[in-house]
Amino acid sequence: MSKLRVQSFSVSLDGFGAGPAQDLEHPLGVNGPELMEWFFHTRLWQTLQGGEGGETGTDNAMVVRGFAGIGAWILGRNMFGPVRGPWPDDQWKGWWGEEPPYHTPVFVLTHHARSPLVMKGGTTFHFVTEGIHAALAQARAAAGGRDVRIGGGVDTVRQFLRERLIDELHLAVRPILLGSGEALFQGLDWRALGYTCVDTIAGERATHVFLQKQT
Amino acid sequence: MSKLRVQSFSVSLDGFGAGPAQDLEHPLGVNGPELMEWFFHTRLWQTLQGGEGGETGTDNAMVVRGFAGIGAWILGRNMFGPVRGPWPDDQWKGWWGEEPPYHTPVFVLTHHARSPLVMKGGTTFHFVTEGIHAALAQARAAAGGRDVRIGGGVDTVRQFLRERLIDELHLAVRPILLGSGEALFQGLDWRALGYTCVDTIAGERATHVFLQKQT
Repeated sequence: MSKLRVQSFSVSLDGFGAGPAQDLEHPLGVNGPELMEWFFHTRLWQTLQGGEGGETGTDNAMVVRGFAGIGAWILGRNMFGPVRGPWPDDQWKGWWGEEPPYHTPVFVLTHHARSPLVMKGGTTFHFVTEGIHAALAQARAAAGGRDVRIGGGVDTVRQFLRERLIDELHLAVRPILLGSGEALFQGLDWRALGYTCVDTIAGERATHVFLQKQT
Repeated sequence: MSKLRVQSFSVSLDGFGAGPAQDLEHPLGVNGPELMEWFFHTRLWQTLQGGEGGETGTDNAMVVRGFAGIGAWILGRNMFGPVRGPWPDDQWKGWWGEEPPYHTPVFVLTHHARSPLVMKGGTTFHFVTEGIHAALAQARAAAGGRDVRIGGGVDTVRQFLRERLIDELHLAVRPILLGSGEALFQGLDWRALGYTCVDTIAGERATHVFLQKQT
């Protein structure tokens, strides 16, 4: 069966996966871009942005690995945008412009129904109001045998972890202190849930740690 | 002035510096030895144990660095032993046998007075009941211009951090999940306290992260 994977998920030394006070000006929370500093330098990210250049070392290889074999994505509402509550209109189309970097169906968790949103480059946002199990079932069906990737944010990853639905996680541990923000580990016993570290790779700007669910 | 340093301090991926339920059988808490797995393999540790062999790679170099220039140590009561409350007698002499690996004066934080304890190899345990500032003053005086090292445990490190007394920290981040135990970061904003990461070095079994207090 296709796997449910978390890839290239940044976490600070002190365990935060996003900064505090996310809003329109701070999609990753205050100081959140420091978490992604390893990612912004990679060639794949530069290419997805329509640019040229970028580095081709270990960090880039980890990003490439994260996109391989993915047939659908799942995102939390807050990762899709800063809008809270019912959708006032169809204006908000994500943080990523006309051609988002997903190029697959993307299932957005929300409590508020909205029609699918077709973007350039093969990305269609589907809005799922029936919870994480429904989102996973729809994503698996859409993925056509390929894997499903959870993009985030922190709360979404933790919801799927709690139900032991995630098969593999790749965390990019950044040597920074955020001090506050969205805590990835706090109050959730990953070990008791059956997760274990299986590999570590030192990148240029992050330490890449790979975790698997024990069966 | 001599520095106050934390060295070779192990922390799990999920932020625990010791396992839960420390007692006589579990000096590092349940599953705590997994935190030290990088340390046990080093040549310096093997040598301090009176043995031969051990590895001489990056992890060992980090341990060596941690012992260099240290003139006195500070330990929390729980790092010294499992005895709680008033000392029933002078039987407990630490976890480390007749010749502890410190070879300097060691200042043990406790609420219960006890006479100094002279061990083999230059280690003398002094029991300080007047709090962390008094312990630091005594340790600095004893160190004779060299640095003072905080051995741990987690609560002791956090007490000194809260007062911004620590100049440098070297954390050995282990790619393991403890799930529960003594949380190093939780509820303490290291960034707001003025700490920042200045270097990262990949070792054989841990990622070594170096932090400094900004002046």
